[in-house]
Amino acid sequence: MTAQGMGDRGVAIVGAGLVGIGWAIVFARAGLAVRVHDSSGVRLGDVPALMRRSLDDLHDAGLLDDPDAVMARVSCHADLHEAVRGVDYVQESVLELVDMKIGLYRDLDNLLDAHTVVGSSSSGIPSSAFTAGLGIAPNCLVAHPVNPPYLARIVELVPASWTRPETVDAVHALMTRVDQHPIRVTREGEGFVLNRLQGALLREAWALYDEGYCSLADLDATISEGLGLRWSFMGPFETIDLNAPGGIRDYAERLGGLYLSIARDRTNPQPWSADLIARVEAERRQTLPATDLAERGAWRDRRLMALAAHKKAVADAG
Amino acid sequence: MTAQGMGDRGVAIVGAGLVGIGWAIVFARAGLAVRVHDSSGVRLGDVPALMRRSLDDLHDAGLLDDPDAVMARVSCHADLHEAVRGVDYVQESVLELVDMKIGLYRDLDNLLDAHTVVGSSSSGIPSSAFTAGLGIAPNCLVAHPVNPPYLARIVELVPASWTRPETVDAVHALMTRVDQHPIRVTREGEGFVLNRLQGALLREAWALYDEGYCSLADLDATISEGLGLRWSFMGPFETIDLNAPGGIRDYAERLGGLYLSIARDRTNPQPWSADLIARVEAERRQTLPATDLAERGAWRDRRLMALAAHKKAVADAG
Repeated sequence: MTAQGMGDRGVAIVGAGLVGIGWAIVFARAGLAVRVHDSSGVRLGDVPALMRRSLDDLHDAGLLDDPDAVMARVSCHADLHEAVRGVDYVQESVLELVDMKIGLYRDLDNLLDAHTVVGSSSSGIPSSAFTAGLGIAPNCLVAHPVNPPYLARIVELVPASWTRPETVDAVHALMTRVDQHPIRVTREGEGFVLNRLQGALLREAWALYDEGYCSLADLDATISEGLGLRWSFMGPFETIDLNAPGGIRDYAERLGGLYLSIARDRTNPQPWSADLIARVEAERRQTLPATDLAERGAWRDRRLMALAAHKKAVADAG
Repeated sequence: MTAQGMGDRGVAIVGAGLVGIGWAIVFARAGLAVRVHDSSGVRLGDVPALMRRSLDDLHDAGLLDDPDAVMARVSCHADLHEAVRGVDYVQESVLELVDMKIGLYRDLDNLLDAHTVVGSSSSGIPSSAFTAGLGIAPNCLVAHPVNPPYLARIVELVPASWTRPETVDAVHALMTRVDQHPIRVTREGEGFVLNRLQGALLREAWALYDEGYCSLADLDATISEGLGLRWSFMGPFETIDLNAPGGIRDYAERLGGLYLSIARDRTNPQPWSADLIARVEAERRQTLPATDLAERGAWRDRRLMALAAHKKAVADAG
């Protein structure tokens, strides 16, 4: 097997929730054969209809030419062995429960060929927590996407200490092949990278609200009508590199003191108390009643799709 | 004067750097008469050509019908008194130097009508540092934009303790009238709200880099191909409200512990050391040579413009 050919023998998706279905779209859209397994027959039975709906949405947004061709590359398998037999890659996407993952990886340890690589969609549990002692452990890592992965390209690759470097390289090549944007995290750490960055922003936003500086809606607007615009096409380092005449060093020397001083306000992190959560919930429900959550989630998905089409058009235009 | 009519007698821009010129475009685009002043004759002389270039770019991006009509509403004045006489509102946009602002506000104190309101574009210095003891102090506040304000709508309104509530209300109404998105910050605090949120994300990103978890480019991609997509049209509170079946309370109860634990890794903030800055600079310069900074800045502005056109089209479509 060469890195270039990774995926030629097909991939398996284990766990057919929203994340698993999203992955099936990513791989099948890129031309790979995809076998989907779920231990729940009901969930597995829903896969074709749910996939079809998302593919039609992608088609309507101008992001996909031929939904039928994508559907034709996907098969569903109630039997785990049948799903994973002979594939190059397994994308594990079961629930974020460590015992469930431990059980599944034991089964995979018995079923997989020596060459098969396994990426876990885990958003928080490191793979060392469910691959310790297994023969396949050197072939396993976390490959954590943002939902839905067919619209957000980022995938963080997080190896355990025993993951082979070649495993990381192979998954990096596969993700690049299917047009995702893989990043290499050097080692396990709580929250990996993506949720640490999200957590830092959330922590400050919750604290500012708790201290009465701003309403929830105004804090949200600070991102959605301000900082978040640039962040949709360039990261925080590139942002500050372009925000001082002399680049990132110039910026750091000018503003490092301010940011250090701000950070020193936050040296005593407190839990989000039940009272604080209740206040946040009450204010948020005034903006969006609980009965409208699902509808707003569909709106978010349409916006993400329109944004993906926009980014693609801008990139194609050079 | 009613809040509805605020701006009818025109606005003055004091300080004709990039931020001031950006503000002139915002107000003139919305149909208001704009007088621009700068103490530097050279800078003032450059205003028409710089404005024209930005207006033509907006026109080419489909964001502005008639650049000539906007230009016709703007006049340049070497004399401060002539610029501010009789206007409803002054947007102060001089350099971020407290002594310069103190001197200017003393002059304004002698020149302004009792009804005139003054908003400062200050990104960090609170207005209490340059309005203390002045007769106009109750009419002054910070109105901090993101650059350029004609593409990023957010404006944070930050009153000093002596700012009249009616002043905040009037600037909120004016900013809404000219299609900006004002937010109310209840009181002065270091970094206001926008730079506190940016600082929180930067701090975690710099720390993760310093600890060797990730490359700069991969940290940037985590935002630009991941978290930043949603943040370009919804803030962090709305994001998590839609990321758990039961909404924001459900999310906070599930993930509050993780985020608290992550925060507890960061209780000892350290300055960005000279060595760390040098490493960041060296890695960033491999991605973007210093000679390409200006060109990349122009790219960023084109992307922001295309994004603004995209957001407008999506909003118009409902």
